[in-house]
Amino acid sequence: MTEAAVPASRVAIALLHHPVYDKNRQVVTTAVTNLDIHDIARAAKTFGMFRYYVVTPVAEQQALAERIRAHWIEGWGAGYNPRRREALELLRVVDGLEAAVADMTGAFAVAPRIVVTGARGRSGCIDTARLRELLEEETRPTLLLFGTGWGLTEEVFDGADLILEPIRGSDTYNHLSVRAAVAIYLDRLFGSR
Amino acid sequence: MTEAAVPASRVAIALLHHPVYDKNRQVVTTAVTNLDIHDIARAAKTFGMFRYYVVTPVAEQQALAERIRAHWIEGWGAGYNPRRREALELLRVVDGLEAAVADMTGAFAVAPRIVVTGARGRSGCIDTARLRELLEEETRPTLLLFGTGWGLTEEVFDGADLILEPIRGSDTYNHLSVRAAVAIYLDRLFGSR
Repeated sequence: MTEAAVPASRVAIALLHHPVYDKNRQVVTTAVTNLDIHDIARAAKTFGMFRYYVVTPVAEQQALAERIRAHWIEGWGAGYNPRRREALELLRVVDGLEAAVADMTGAFAVAPRIVVTGARGRSGCIDTARLRELLEEETRPTLLLFGTGWGLTEEVFDGADLILEPIRGSDTYNHLSVRAAVAIYLDRLFGSR
Repeated sequence: MTEAAVPASRVAIALLHHPVYDKNRQVVTTAVTNLDIHDIARAAKTFGMFRYYVVTPVAEQQALAERIRAHWIEGWGAGYNPRRREALELLRVVDGLEAAVADMTGAFAVAPRIVVTGARGRSGCIDTARLRELLEEETRPTLLLFGTGWGLTEEVFDGADLILEPIRGSDTYNHLSVRAAVAIYLDRLFGSR
């Protein structure tokens, strides 16, 4: 099982804190967490990705994410752990999915393909091997969306170009953290093995 | 790329908080964190593993881990989120690697093979495809060790039966969180794709 790595330099991640469902399927905005920022930035950097967008419409939450970014890029953390700085340089804090799409469109002069991930199977999903092929064959930039809380709303799924199939283990249990799911998807898409 | 899932029911994870290095290569004991417990338990459950050992020699830290376990298994959390209970049922808090090995030896009537993972390449590493084959071919139970802090000590590597090669992305940067590294290794070893 030896495969060349797929270039990730035209692919970004967006972690959406809104619009997502809560436990009772109400549409909510979840809180930004320090560890989601760090873990996903480190994974994005490991796999050579373009950017990592943290998406929240709440100004205080945006400020929190920016404060974490600044601490590790310009503040005390930059000297303490330069590796963390390299990862957090990928971070962009935006107020909505549209802003992430606009940022990528500006960078690549073409709108990104939107790919949604989720824990629940849906008709018309493609698997990671197929997306890996598409990323090898085409130069179109791609934005991978991940949800927080109890998952992205139907509206987000409806607006996507492609839906990736869920990660399945060897059990019917399927409740990975978003941090673990991101890591696995990135390894499947971009890992050398 | 369709492969049958490898059974993980004879394989456990141990997350070692000691003996590990700190930033200056001193041997230390790191703190137990709530999110390592949850994320790794959920990944272990997703891939159908036997158990997840949290290893720390510090009594207060053991008590903290046990308190988290009890909250989700018997306490308020069990009703709030039964899926979390199922994952945390895999958790065993032990005071050293020897105790984890003894527990597995008791359960399977044979000592587990010890497999160490680390972010740095070493001579004699095997890749995850090779370990996947071994797990398919042999029934011997296996204990996968992961370190916290700046990684497991040389002594732990010297005592292992096998060393797994590091996860490589498409970049020279290689600083995944332990939560992300566990998720990727488990998917490579046990995921259906």
